[in-house]
Amino acid sequence: MDLETLKSLAVKAETKIVLLVLDGLGDLPREPGGPTPLEAARTPNMDALAVRGVTGLADPVGPGITPGSGPGHLGLFGYDPLKYRIGRGVIEALGIDLELTPTDVAARGNFCTMDEAGRVTDRRAGRLSTERCIELSRLLDTIRLEGVEVIVRPVKEHRFVVLWRGNGLSDQMTESDPQRLDEAPLKVEAKTPEAERTARLVNAFIEKARLLLREKHPANMILLRGFAKHPNLPTFRELYQLQAAAVAVYPMYRGLGKLAGMQALVTGPSVREEFDVLRQHWRKYDFFYVHVKGTDTAGEDGNFDGKVAVIEEVDRELTTLLGLRPDVLVITGDHSTPASFRAHSWHPVPVLLSSRWCRPDDVQEFSERGCLRGGLGRLKGKEILPLALAHAERLTKFGA
Amino acid sequence: MDLETLKSLAVKAETKIVLLVLDGLGDLPREPGGPTPLEAARTPNMDALAVRGVTGLADPVGPGITPGSGPGHLGLFGYDPLKYRIGRGVIEALGIDLELTPTDVAARGNFCTMDEAGRVTDRRAGRLSTERCIELSRLLDTIRLEGVEVIVRPVKEHRFVVLWRGNGLSDQMTESDPQRLDEAPLKVEAKTPEAERTARLVNAFIEKARLLLREKHPANMILLRGFAKHPNLPTFRELYQLQAAAVAVYPMYRGLGKLAGMQALVTGPSVREEFDVLRQHWRKYDFFYVHVKGTDTAGEDGNFDGKVAVIEEVDRELTTLLGLRPDVLVITGDHSTPASFRAHSWHPVPVLLSSRWCRPDDVQEFSERGCLRGGLGRLKGKEILPLALAHAERLTKFGA
Repeated sequence: MDLETLKSLAVKAETKIVLLVLDGLGDLPREPGGPTPLEAARTPNMDALAVRGVTGLADPVGPGITPGSGPGHLGLFGYDPLKYRIGRGVIEALGIDLELTPTDVAARGNFCTMDEAGRVTDRRAGRLSTERCIELSRLLDTIRLEGVEVIVRPVKEHRFVVLWRGNGLSDQMTESDPQRLDEAPLKVEAKTPEAERTARLVNAFIEKARLLLREKHPANMILLRGFAKHPNLPTFRELYQLQAAAVAVYPMYRGLGKLAGMQALVTGPSVREEFDVLRQHWRKYDFFYVHVKGTDTAGEDGNFDGKVAVIEEVDRELTTLLGLRPDVLVITGDHSTPASFRAHSWHPVPVLLSSRWCRPDDVQEFSERGCLRGGLGRLKGKEILPLALAHAERLTKFGA
Repeated sequence: MDLETLKSLAVKAETKIVLLVLDGLGDLPREPGGPTPLEAARTPNMDALAVRGVTGLADPVGPGITPGSGPGHLGLFGYDPLKYRIGRGVIEALGIDLELTPTDVAARGNFCTMDEAGRVTDRRAGRLSTERCIELSRLLDTIRLEGVEVIVRPVKEHRFVVLWRGNGLSDQMTESDPQRLDEAPLKVEAKTPEAERTARLVNAFIEKARLLLREKHPANMILLRGFAKHPNLPTFRELYQLQAAAVAVYPMYRGLGKLAGMQALVTGPSVREEFDVLRQHWRKYDFFYVHVKGTDTAGEDGNFDGKVAVIEEVDRELTTLLGLRPDVLVITGDHSTPASFRAHSWHPVPVLLSSRWCRPDDVQEFSERGCLRGGLGRLKGKEILPLALAHAERLTKFGA
């Protein structure tokens, strides 16, 4: 279903929808025949929802495709991640409340360590402190280029954002990050003739940064990637007449929500604080996207038990959310991050949808194995939002 | 699979296919954990077919999308309902055997009640009698407009059809039906410059109708919607070399069959009579579409037990159909109409396909829960017809 058609079916209603994203939720058993973290976790609240609701398994992008956080979330927000592509630079910029104009080009930057031969020896400059990142970003922000404004802002640890602001800029450029050690940073190249001037400006910026950072070991160089312009997605308000809010601790996820037109709400770092923020803003919005990062972090760290603990924490805190009686509650992930794999993976993600209008299946618990037999069947990530809207009685009939 | 490719694979055969559509078949349990109407109904014949055949769940249009009868049926007839869109006017016109020329514009009309302030107080004029509808339609049929022929025909109760016949007409117009009470009928507006003349003609028609009906309370006004031209679908004969017939009591469903090039057969109103008509014409056609309306009517009325009764009636009468030994029998719905929801819904529809070539699954009964575990899996509505053709040995190999 294309977004134009979906938009034509959207109607107003008094119902409230919560999309709870446990980042990297899907997983694998630790040992053959054993449970996954979701199966090992004690989750009485989620299991009760699975009994009354309907479950399934979602492919965020497609079978075999491992999504980044951007495509994984775009799918959950109902956008086709193969059609709408968002560069890392844009996500990082929005996540630190750096507003992009339609002509800006953004990039994600890393401070890195370079040896005397000009080869990268640490792509994260020893995981720089955020304080030092702020200081060095200020230094880079002093760089001036001919005919274009440059804005440099710190993100966290070794990460920063660069914005080139001016007319006639293009994001069609190769990256400077070699993505491996013991190689020199790459020259940024234009992929199209229109990008040649921008590539010259970016390379000039990198050279000025190198000179400014020469004595700043271990942060004596930068790497740039994810050149991108604002994708100008149609927003949840335009598409579905939804007032939507994002509750997320990490900048990138707030940024993803903002791309869809969500209001990013300020929250403390714990799951409890996130749900408290939800409760405080309950009356003001129709749709809440709540992002929990801990599941993904534990998965990336190979910490099976840590992932179990985060899932159990979410399940305990869920009582706050359930007390608000959302008309539709979806619990899922943006991708799988199996603890044994220590990285994002292609495995489909468990989905649980709870509403008074669910057709029940025989699934008794929220788990990978249960979802395999669930009434939602096997679906695409982008199909979850239309289902949530339907169960919230926010889509009218298609055709006579 | 696009229709052109499917057409290139179609071959002649002696096999016969029956598509039995129980309108609005899919449903929900009346109480948590309870059965749906299909599960509650005693259906020994369908259950026996489910044991030998193969089942699944179909999304008529897509996950979360609630189809109207048009898109629901187009999908069952193998057309992509997102690509082929048919206005209500065309469906209603064909259903009363009012043939459309390629240049005609058709609209669905309602007689309605308007108060002295010009606001609609009953969108169906107290569900007018069909006799009165016939009489008032004849009155409107006397309306003459400059440069265009106007044809008004009664359908049933408050419903009628208007046809504007002439050159240079467009269906790209907004509707006059405000779709809610206590509002005035809307002026019909052209959506494109080409439609401006047609919109003027339609508005002139409405004004003349208002004057003619002034003293005819409760039917003292009309509402028009679903302006549409004939979609010129490729027919079952062109695509699949099938001689196809439609057995349906209600005009709209005969009309939908005719859009696919089916011959609409005359039938009495009961399921038994429909199956008798099927039997009488058995030798003459390769494909029979049989439509049963009662399941949808009961669903719309919130009549769970009534829906159970219609399903049981169909199951009893099925012996007539089974006695004819169709090579392929498909039993399904065009959409779900849960009795608790009292309207069409987005829930997927149970599908049962019976043929000597079915790969059996473990399903022992025709039910929503059973179909969830069926061998057809989760499929799109438009994928059912290719499966029926395949099991009828009417599709040759794709590629060498």
